[in-house]
Amino acid sequence: MTTMISVPDPAILSPAQARLTFRSGTRLPTAGWSQGYAQANLIAVPVDWAYDVLLFCQRNPKPCPVLDVTDPGSTTTVLAPDADLRTDLPGYRVWRDGELADEPTDVTGLWSGELVTFLIGCSFTFEATLADAWLPLRHVEQERNVPMYVTDRMCRPAGRLHGPMVVSMRPIPAELVDTAVRLTGRMPDVHGAPVHVGDPAALGIADVHHPQFGDAVAAEAGDVPVFWACGVTPQAAVMASRPPFAITHQPGHMLITDVPDSVYRIA
Amino acid sequence: MTTMISVPDPAILSPAQARLTFRSGTRLPTAGWSQGYAQANLIAVPVDWAYDVLLFCQRNPKPCPVLDVTDPGSTTTVLAPDADLRTDLPGYRVWRDGELADEPTDVTGLWSGELVTFLIGCSFTFEATLADAWLPLRHVEQERNVPMYVTDRMCRPAGRLHGPMVVSMRPIPAELVDTAVRLTGRMPDVHGAPVHVGDPAALGIADVHHPQFGDAVAAEAGDVPVFWACGVTPQAAVMASRPPFAITHQPGHMLITDVPDSVYRIA
Repeated sequence: MTTMISVPDPAILSPAQARLTFRSGTRLPTAGWSQGYAQANLIAVPVDWAYDVLLFCQRNPKPCPVLDVTDPGSTTTVLAPDADLRTDLPGYRVWRDGELADEPTDVTGLWSGELVTFLIGCSFTFEATLADAWLPLRHVEQERNVPMYVTDRMCRPAGRLHGPMVVSMRPIPAELVDTAVRLTGRMPDVHGAPVHVGDPAALGIADVHHPQFGDAVAAEAGDVPVFWACGVTPQAAVMASRPPFAITHQPGHMLITDVPDSVYRIA
Repeated sequence: MTTMISVPDPAILSPAQARLTFRSGTRLPTAGWSQGYAQANLIAVPVDWAYDVLLFCQRNPKPCPVLDVTDPGSTTTVLAPDADLRTDLPGYRVWRDGELADEPTDVTGLWSGELVTFLIGCSFTFEATLADAWLPLRHVEQERNVPMYVTDRMCRPAGRLHGPMVVSMRPIPAELVDTAVRLTGRMPDVHGAPVHVGDPAALGIADVHHPQFGDAVAAEAGDVPVFWACGVTPQAAVMASRPPFAITHQPGHMLITDVPDSVYRIA
């Protein structure tokens, strides 16, 4: 005899319920979770690197729209006051001298009073807006993480930080690309309008079927690849610029905030 | 016999022509100048204070939307590559320990390799958009500087920086307030939608006829006072927080940039 377990639809979990799920160790990408609530990228660096990161974000607002910056050592954010930034994301990456050192689901033991945490807008935040307008989201339909690519477009450097822009890609039916551009253009705090439509090679992407982060996603007939600037860009800067220590989220495994995504929608 | 001097309409001066006028020492408020081009507030602080200023701006994006941050000692900005930040504004304020020490039209002698300059969005940038929709601009009609007020709303502090929000006020015909809100709401990088409509007392403004900065402006029958967050807010933070040294623009006497204001318009 089997015990039936009730598995709620992640789309309708409250942000607090979703975070509790991840706090207990579940490692899953968060696309489609807690629909209607903003999600955020995370990067925590030693206080000595905080100005360079904040300036890098200011100079590259499409990939790095800053939603909150904590005081040194803080484990909380105004975006989700009950969240613990050390445990409530489904996956973390630990970086030492620009090299990936570990991918834990909890970084409590690595936290210190020296760390300043940046929470950066995420394109998952505009997906409910796209879905409301009947745009298909192939990676959600296929239950995969969104595909992400390192491009050949260099960010404007800031202090010791430099690196290429990372993008996420969604296949969009050609006749709905204008709607996708218009709707996301009104959400600049979560990456805004696409940085490119149509040709992966124009961004230096050799093979759209082999993303550097996340999963390959199958396009359907008539789909066009649409590329948005991505909050994994600071991770690419960490790899290129080699700060002694950093903690980031695992790509696609975001902080789910308490902020309704409509807060980031203009007009 | 008098010599006639041709005085061009400041509205149609190019940004470069306007800056040349100010470089030669003309001290005038810039509302209505070089229509169609973004204007910017300026604050320069010692590098030791730069992180606090940048974080203060990130935490208070309505009054302090950052358009550019220079590297230490730089006298130029990407917003106007030919401009000299030390000479091309019509008026500066020099602050020592939070006290106003001087109001020169040129700060070349005070510049140093230690100074980091922040250029912050200005509400003059959305005035052409309002005028295009036939909204009257009373301060421009009356050839006055816009009135600005220190409110009782405190900004979210950042490090050593704290202080109240400053607002600018424009009397708007009641039946056009919705248009003003809608159009400026689409320009978040230049202060966005108003922070308040109607009652100066709600912002702790005792007497709308006595602004702390700029000039009093006469309302016409049927006008409602509309308040926008203002880029003079960092100056109020300087007064409250007393960094050892700072240079700002004189309120209403802005940097006229080469960036078309449409760049800051969303949707």
